[in-house]
Amino acid sequence: MDFNEKYNLYVNEFNRTLEKFCNGIDCRPKILADSLKYSLNIGGKRIRPVLMLAVGDLLGLERRKLENFALSIELIHTYSLIHDDLPEMDNDDFRRGKPSNHKVFGTGNAVLAGDGLLNTAYSLLLKECKNGIEYISAAEYICDSAGICGMIAGQSADLMHEKDSSYNEATLDFIYENKTGKLITAPVVVPGILLGGRCFSELKAFGRDLGLLFQITDDILDVEGDFETLGKSIGKDDKDGKYTSVSVYGLDGAKLRADVLAERCRTLLEGIEGDRDFLVRLVDYVRTRKG
Amino acid sequence: MDFNEKYNLYVNEFNRTLEKFCNGIDCRPKILADSLKYSLNIGGKRIRPVLMLAVGDLLGLERRKLENFALSIELIHTYSLIHDDLPEMDNDDFRRGKPSNHKVFGTGNAVLAGDGLLNTAYSLLLKECKNGIEYISAAEYICDSAGICGMIAGQSADLMHEKDSSYNEATLDFIYENKTGKLITAPVVVPGILLGGRCFSELKAFGRDLGLLFQITDDILDVEGDFETLGKSIGKDDKDGKYTSVSVYGLDGAKLRADVLAERCRTLLEGIEGDRDFLVRLVDYVRTRKG
Repeated sequence: MDFNEKYNLYVNEFNRTLEKFCNGIDCRPKILADSLKYSLNIGGKRIRPVLMLAVGDLLGLERRKLENFALSIELIHTYSLIHDDLPEMDNDDFRRGKPSNHKVFGTGNAVLAGDGLLNTAYSLLLKECKNGIEYISAAEYICDSAGICGMIAGQSADLMHEKDSSYNEATLDFIYENKTGKLITAPVVVPGILLGGRCFSELKAFGRDLGLLFQITDDILDVEGDFETLGKSIGKDDKDGKYTSVSVYGLDGAKLRADVLAERCRTLLEGIEGDRDFLVRLVDYVRTRKG
Repeated sequence: MDFNEKYNLYVNEFNRTLEKFCNGIDCRPKILADSLKYSLNIGGKRIRPVLMLAVGDLLGLERRKLENFALSIELIHTYSLIHDDLPEMDNDDFRRGKPSNHKVFGTGNAVLAGDGLLNTAYSLLLKECKNGIEYISAAEYICDSAGICGMIAGQSADLMHEKDSSYNEATLDFIYENKTGKLITAPVVVPGILLGGRCFSELKAFGRDLGLLFQITDDILDVEGDFETLGKSIGKDDKDGKYTSVSVYGLDGAKLRADVLAERCRTLLEGIEGDRDFLVRLVDYVRTRKG
């Protein structure tokens, strides 16, 4: 099976789980349920769930153990996009080629949709906590990755960057590692935690580098991509005067860094036993993606 | 000891726990930590932690078991106020007599401060999950109370009410029970859950009625209160054309409903063994409060 086929198999499997989950959302008023489902269902690469399922396969973990963890990460990711797109945050009118949540439902409802997704993610994680201490540890890892010393710290630093002239390369690393990296590392590490911490440090290092690679290719796509493939506004970083890997290292410099990170990801995978083929190709996919 | 002394003892005890917790918040950038701490420390009645500690005493539960649960509820309550005060939600410039979070830190930072508090509440709850199944159940009860079939549903219905002419008394009940009631019921019920479900139905009914009473006296204070005692804008509901117990039942009608609810709370307390004196007086305090 080629890489794309296998990627799509993982996506379809996750989307079925997500569909079942969405069908179970039964809250009032209707606009609350609609706004949650809208953002969960406007597509996206589902790279976080795919990563979790693929690492689970690599380590030989039973699939059903990952369902709620994969859902919770995608819910947290989706909430962060809704709040990030808000007018006083990144002010993005489009997400995945469709109008952002607040453009469809209004800002107030978009704030609540984000809050609702974050809270529901923890509802899923608390359910898993009953299965034992490894499950609680995995939930805590996700919580720390999403929290005020993780993703939210990165978002906050990102939001402040235009106002602070003392920002430098270390700040950019901090933003990327936290805003993007932590929530890409979490799905990579969770299957290992559920197996008692198997390959923890290798998986964590791989997730961190893959997250940085993902963010740098995002910056490159903001320059070289097109709206149709990418589904969001292009050239926005430059227009907003944003501090990105491209503005700091130049386009070629950013590409060189991406190449180095991709190579490091491949090397790190070699330290893990099992059929690593899909994950190796996933690294290439992230490096060369168009959307 | 009179009621006020005992209430203040509970508040001081909780504030010490909160201070220790705030001192431990060590996240970057500084504005993120500052904005979290600002809203946690601008005062407030702390009625939710006080309720939890008082019910814990009534049932004879060890105090240290409640610390993280009390913190988590106050964090969730505080996040909901920050997001509720945002311009496109309730648009309140003042909270507890001080400028709202977004007036001090800007809207983007206020969104993140709310997100950060919600996430940190779950970090505290997940820590407790390691102590056993009752702790997980208590965390789940709080999660459901705060979530899309709880507080967020109430906020969403409240936000939509001006646009929907089909709203009626049942809608008002739905909003009050969810937006205010669920997060006042949770701290009442949690000590019982930690004791294996002791007095669950009595505590739940008491919490529900007390929550409604609290919201109705809030409506009455919006008409009869003053800014200095209340710490927030007065007459705002009427100005915003809000659907409240006063606009639906009239001021006297709202007071009558408050009296009936207070009486029901007292009766429900009689069904629980132990020294109920403080909680009975707390009901009177909520009914006659000025701020």
